[in-house]
Amino acid sequence: MEYLITYDVDTTTKQGERRLRRVAKVCEGYGIRVQKSVFEVTCTAAQLPSLRQQLIDIIDAQADSIRLYRLTAGSLRAVECLGAARLAPHHGDHIL
Amino acid sequence: MEYLITYDVDTTTKQGERRLRRVAKVCEGYGIRVQKSVFEVTCTAAQLPSLRQQLIDIIDAQADSIRLYRLTAGSLRAVECLGAARLAPHHGDHIL
Repeated sequence: MEYLITYDVDTTTKQGERRLRRVAKVCEGYGIRVQKSVFEVTCTAAQLPSLRQQLIDIIDAQADSIRLYRLTAGSLRAVECLGAARLAPHHGDHIL
Repeated sequence: MEYLITYDVDTTTKQGERRLRRVAKVCEGYGIRVQKSVFEVTCTAAQLPSLRQQLIDIIDAQADSIRLYRLTAGSLRAVECLGAARLAPHHGDHIL
């Protein structure tokens, strides 16, 4: 499954900066960072609950926001990139 | 058509800050800001070229990046929202 994960983490505190790093680290385990707070992620249906829970466990539920957009298969290869944006090098087999 | 527009604009200069505001302003004309640099947009096939060109005309092609993700109909109502994230109040008729 292909997902887009976008997030805003409140980095006005040290703890927020740490949460930001931890959110990115989790997302890196499932995909590719394409912008500061945007990851293109591929995961199986079995992996999704764990990904979701890891993110929930990290963030401050009042201050931080994460959005998961389910994309249709192939969407990550059809992204329109303007300016310095480039298609992310997802591996074929990585896209389930 | 439903789109997700995500962007990173280099705001290390005054001009960059201005570009950021202008990008957001264009996107506001087509949809709803859901995170700092993320808009959920609905537009017709006829509107898309103009939206795209307005964004291209604003950004610095080397320093800024914009990504347009085409979503399937109904995706904007099926976003998974974690933490402080909420579904955006798109109007039914707004979603074409």
